[in-house]
Amino acid sequence: MNAVEIIRKKRDKEALSDIEIDFIIQNYTKRKIPDYQFSSFLMAGFLNGFNETETAALTKCMLYSGTVIDLSDIPGLKIDKHSTGGVGDKTSLILAPIVAAAGINVPMISGRGLGHTGGTLDKLESITGFRTNLNLNEYKNAIKKCGAVLIGQTEEIAPADKLIYSLRDVTATVESIPLITASIMSKKLAEGIDGLVLDVKTGSGAFMKEQEDSEKLARSLIGTASAFGKKVIAFITDMNQPLGTHIGNWLEVVESVKVLQGEKVETLLEVTLNLAGAMIFLGEKAGSVEEGIYLSEKIINSGKAFDKFLEITELQGGETSLLKNTDNYCKSNYEENVFADREGYLSSIDNYKIGVASLELGAGRLTKEDKIDFKAGIIFYPEIGSKIKKGDLIARIFTDKQNVIEQTKKIITSSIYISEESVKKIKMIKTIIKGD
Amino acid sequence: MNAVEIIRKKRDKEALSDIEIDFIIQNYTKRKIPDYQFSSFLMAGFLNGFNETETAALTKCMLYSGTVIDLSDIPGLKIDKHSTGGVGDKTSLILAPIVAAAGINVPMISGRGLGHTGGTLDKLESITGFRTNLNLNEYKNAIKKCGAVLIGQTEEIAPADKLIYSLRDVTATVESIPLITASIMSKKLAEGIDGLVLDVKTGSGAFMKEQEDSEKLARSLIGTASAFGKKVIAFITDMNQPLGTHIGNWLEVVESVKVLQGEKVETLLEVTLNLAGAMIFLGEKAGSVEEGIYLSEKIINSGKAFDKFLEITELQGGETSLLKNTDNYCKSNYEENVFADREGYLSSIDNYKIGVASLELGAGRLTKEDKIDFKAGIIFYPEIGSKIKKGDLIARIFTDKQNVIEQTKKIITSSIYISEESVKKIKMIKTIIKGD
Repeated sequence: MNAVEIIRKKRDKEALSDIEIDFIIQNYTKRKIPDYQFSSFLMAGFLNGFNETETAALTKCMLYSGTVIDLSDIPGLKIDKHSTGGVGDKTSLILAPIVAAAGINVPMISGRGLGHTGGTLDKLESITGFRTNLNLNEYKNAIKKCGAVLIGQTEEIAPADKLIYSLRDVTATVESIPLITASIMSKKLAEGIDGLVLDVKTGSGAFMKEQEDSEKLARSLIGTASAFGKKVIAFITDMNQPLGTHIGNWLEVVESVKVLQGEKVETLLEVTLNLAGAMIFLGEKAGSVEEGIYLSEKIINSGKAFDKFLEITELQGGETSLLKNTDNYCKSNYEENVFADREGYLSSIDNYKIGVASLELGAGRLTKEDKIDFKAGIIFYPEIGSKIKKGDLIARIFTDKQNVIEQTKKIITSSIYISEESVKKIKMIKTIIKGD
Repeated sequence: MNAVEIIRKKRDKEALSDIEIDFIIQNYTKRKIPDYQFSSFLMAGFLNGFNETETAALTKCMLYSGTVIDLSDIPGLKIDKHSTGGVGDKTSLILAPIVAAAGINVPMISGRGLGHTGGTLDKLESITGFRTNLNLNEYKNAIKKCGAVLIGQTEEIAPADKLIYSLRDVTATVESIPLITASIMSKKLAEGIDGLVLDVKTGSGAFMKEQEDSEKLARSLIGTASAFGKKVIAFITDMNQPLGTHIGNWLEVVESVKVLQGEKVETLLEVTLNLAGAMIFLGEKAGSVEEGIYLSEKIINSGKAFDKFLEITELQGGETSLLKNTDNYCKSNYEENVFADREGYLSSIDNYKIGVASLELGAGRLTKEDKIDFKAGIIFYPEIGSKIKKGDLIARIFTDKQNVIEQTKKIITSSIYISEESVKKIKMIKTIIKGD
């Protein structure tokens, strides 16, 4: 068995055995197979695909390249959620406290902002003092103490994934469903979970623009989760407009606090409650997703969800006073309004461009070395279907960079389409796919 | 423009522009694009192909990565031949003297043995003293003096091809018709030729086993040669049995000398005369390939071809006395006979295995570092269609390695198939394809 032989098989559309996949992943991770052979393998796999068995084998190798956390000494089920990422997607910040308050453990290893999308870690770190770099001991203790923890990928978790992802990033082999599946699942399975709720986004602000592709990815993730004996439910949710109104790290914390305190941000709440409801159902604290949603609403209204968010923040070193009074956060140098230049109904949004605009304002990284301006971002007011009059406030932007203001305003204006005829609201939950 | 964008386009089956191909080849050759990106590009190209325009652009970039030799100050046309390689393929040694004796310049840059096939350079170097590493000045002077020269690829010739070929070799991206075309043509076009005759082998001893694939390669080579304004004729020739009877470096020199001295080795002569005839036709010393063949036979019979071979050898430092009396060459420690174990008609040969057997005896390199034993090899007597009696001499093997004798005998015996019914002789020239 050698690397060239395995590349050749994949190149010639043959399925690889578990042993062959193990050989190539293990030896690449140990740096015994060079980058140039592995990238040729990745491109062959990108173009010829991997079947379900191969995908599970890839996931397994990547998973066991590092530590698989054992949470069996903590009583109760452990349920996490994974989202494929989007614009204004702050559901983790809201559902983790809800589900933990329902008595389920939520061990959550999240990522940073990528391209035009934000990342949970960056959002949490906008809360002054909030530490996302807990070690695995602190991680376990946090779950024991308050039922939820939100950290970043540590060195111990799936190092093969880190290595492979960096190579995919520079060899045009990112957008492969089996490779995305193995990457996501190797990290999620390492957390020590019993079940997983998936939020696969679809639309102009998502990585998968077409619902068909999102469903394919969801089925691949479900197949792999099931192969590892995990309970799983996937939601295909809309990403043709920002989720909620706030985009940008601290702004998203603010909106999360509002929702946790009972404010009804309709589209955001619809997605968050469904995901939370499914987690509570998988965590066996409700007999169905619907019961889980009912319970989630009760938990918000009782104030327990917000209390749990304060508890999590406290435990991870964040300043809870900022959450209790979000106005105390420092302000952007520039706050500007964007107004509608004509009237009609908002018919569609180039949500990718909204994400890019937020990035330009300072809310994301243009290069890996960039520092994020946590205050920066956009409040985007209308929804698809909203009636708009000329001069209406469309968005408010927050930035310290004067030189990007005009350009960003233009991006926002040019990313919305207004029609004369009335337009229906968007259905946020497109499909629910359940595992076996 | 960047490497990832170009890889992505090829991955997504888009055709690349000349500028994009130039960008990726140039920057890879200058080592500004790393191996891991280029190998991903190669695999995308392997699987999604390159069209004729892209292939010509690849060839052009690889060609101009080095020196393109200018032979315009030498009067007369310059015609070369390229073979895709096989077992016992010694035609270059015979046709170069014939064509040069016909008054045409033959500037020939050849390769070494690869896998189970022999290489012209190794064969020539079996003539004691023969130098194939002439520099470009010596190369030009040799053509001026005697009309033919046979050397190896120098550092100045298509360095991009050398670099790319080594990467293809270890990333399972060798067997791609456009990449093979660019590799062959970038070297051949650098020689300073006006025309090229192609010998694309097909059958069990060739790299392309199927005639269809050989024809595809021939058409691709013709397309590229034509794009560069070169006159070209391609022959698809049989490689289901060794070409002639002698396999191994010095043994092939011996057989070449015999043919140059007028011996009628039928299959070998058929291929060689066709190729030589086509070269003489392209070199405008005959009005058709048939006339070229007639002229070639006359040149052999007059003794001028053998004299030219002596002249070339002399000029490149080889000991001509060995050619005049081939029995003076040193002998192998072991010479053994292989006999037929049953009777019938030779119906087919696994010619690849004959090549491997010769390799094992010492005639080729098992690793890049191996030294060749020039004396080693096989004389393989029967042809497909030959009537064989039990106990007939099938082959004679020559080696210094006692420990491989039994194994090699077995390989030879197991690679021939004998049927009870009579079998037709093989047609050596399968097809002739002419350029525009």
